Amino acid sequence: MEDYVPSLLTATPLEGRELAIKLARKTIAVIQPDAEVRAKLRGDYDHDTAKLMQAAHIVAVEFQTIAAANNYWRDR
Amino acid sequence: MEDYVPSLLTATPLEGRELAIKLARKTIAVIQPDAEVRAKLRGDYDHDTAKLMQAAHIVAVEFQTIAAANNYWRDR
Amino acid sequence: MEDYVPSLLTATPLEGRELAIKLARKTIAVIQPDAEVRAKLRGDYDHDTAKLMQAAHIVAVEFQTIAAANNYWRDR
Amino acid sequence: MEDYVPSLLTATPLEGRELAIKLARKTIAVIQPDAEVRAKLRGDYDHDTAKLMQAAHIVAVEFQTIAAANNYWRDR
Amino acid sequence: MEDYVPSLLTATPLEGRELAIKLARKTIAVIQPDAEVRAKLRGDYDHDTAKLMQAAHIVAVEFQTIAAANNYWRDR
Amino acid sequence: MEDYVPSLLTATPLEGRELAIKLARKTIAVIQPDAEVRAKLRGDYDHDTAKLMQAAHIVAVEFQTIAAANNYWRDR
Repeated sequence: MEDYVPSLLTATPLEGRELAIKLARKTIAVIQPDAEVRAKLRGDYDHDTAKLMQAAHIVAVEFQTIAAANNYWRDR
Repeated sequence: MEDYVPSLLTATPLEGRELAIKLARKTIAVIQPDAEVRAKLRGDYDHDTAKLMQAAHIVAVEFQTIAAANNYWRDR
Repeated sequence: MEDYVPSLLTATPLEGRELAIKLARKTIAVIQPDAEVRAKLRGDYDHDTAKLMQAAHIVAVEFQTIAAANNYWRDR
Repeated sequence: MEDYVPSLLTATPLEGRELAIKLARKTIAVIQPDAEVRAKLRGDYDHDTAKLMQAAHIVAVEFQTIAAANNYWRDR
Repeated sequence: MEDYVPSLLTATPLEGRELAIKLARKTIAVIQPDAEVRAKLRGDYDHDTAKLMQAAHIVAVEFQTIAAANNYWRDR
Repeated sequence: MEDYVPSLLTATPLEGRELAIKLARKTIAVIQPDAEVRAKLRGDYDHDTAKLMQAAHIVAVEFQTIAAANNYWRDR
């Protein structure tokens, strides 16, 4: 398996956001490994407000972990 | 990409709330980059109690992170 | 904008609960600034068990932040 | 208003669970102060698995706060 | 009332998982004390993916608390 | 019972993600021990965006616990 998360440490908060989005996407890919199915499902959620917010909620939770790991980038 | 979150540190709790709302919105914008689609979706959720509360829940989670980053603004 | 949260510190846990409810309500008001629309939506959720619990869940999350900020009011 | 939460400290984990349930209920009562309406809503959720689990989820979140406040009752 | 949680401390992470499941179940039992009703509801959720995941989510939240209480069993 | 979680410590963040997915799955298996039923339910959720995201949310919560246990793998 590709190591999609060698570290939780990022240089900036913005990179931390990007990692949070990546983690959320990779979980979906692990659970549903068929890329074709995922492509179909994508059209299902990115026009659906409730599902977009469900995705944003997951990102918020993943970001909590990443932000703590980076000590909130306080020392930048 | 615009750096919409150069830092998690804010001067006041109120600015922390505003950043939490911004983070939630930006996640949606990253997942659904088409501004026209987002504008349509907006009309879909800001008159829908369950979706407004879904948004408020995400803001609460993002705010947890921001408040911790700011040591809860205890030293103001 | 009115500063509805000058501080996360409160004298008592009960005031912390009240602040948690206030924060949740203010997020809704920021996302949906039309007071008339919000008044209509109110009738929609305060007779709906699932939505009342959705609101109570948000309050529980906001309270986590406030309780941590106040060091759980351990020193009272 | 009755002070339903003078402290987050409890003697035992079990009392902490009871406080978590109480906090969740009191939030509902604050949002929907009409006891008659709440009594009707009760019949609506205690036979509904999804709503019972929604309630249990809120209790779990409130308990996280209470358990942290009590330093997890490690020193008992 | 039976003391179903005399302590949050467990010997192993696996016992911590079991305690998390127990806590989730006991909350349901406190809210809906009629065992016959709960038995009927059980058939309603253990064949329903969304409800099973709702249960697994609660367990994950309870486990966060238990794992923190046990200092993540780091010293075993 | 098989000890599916002898420790929360993992060598890498990626192994932490895998453990988070495993924990979520094992909870489902404990609640619904019939493997045949679970196999049927699987077809129900891995083509359903909302359910896939529900699963990803649980994984995010379990990962918070595992990441904290591993001190965010800061010292690797």
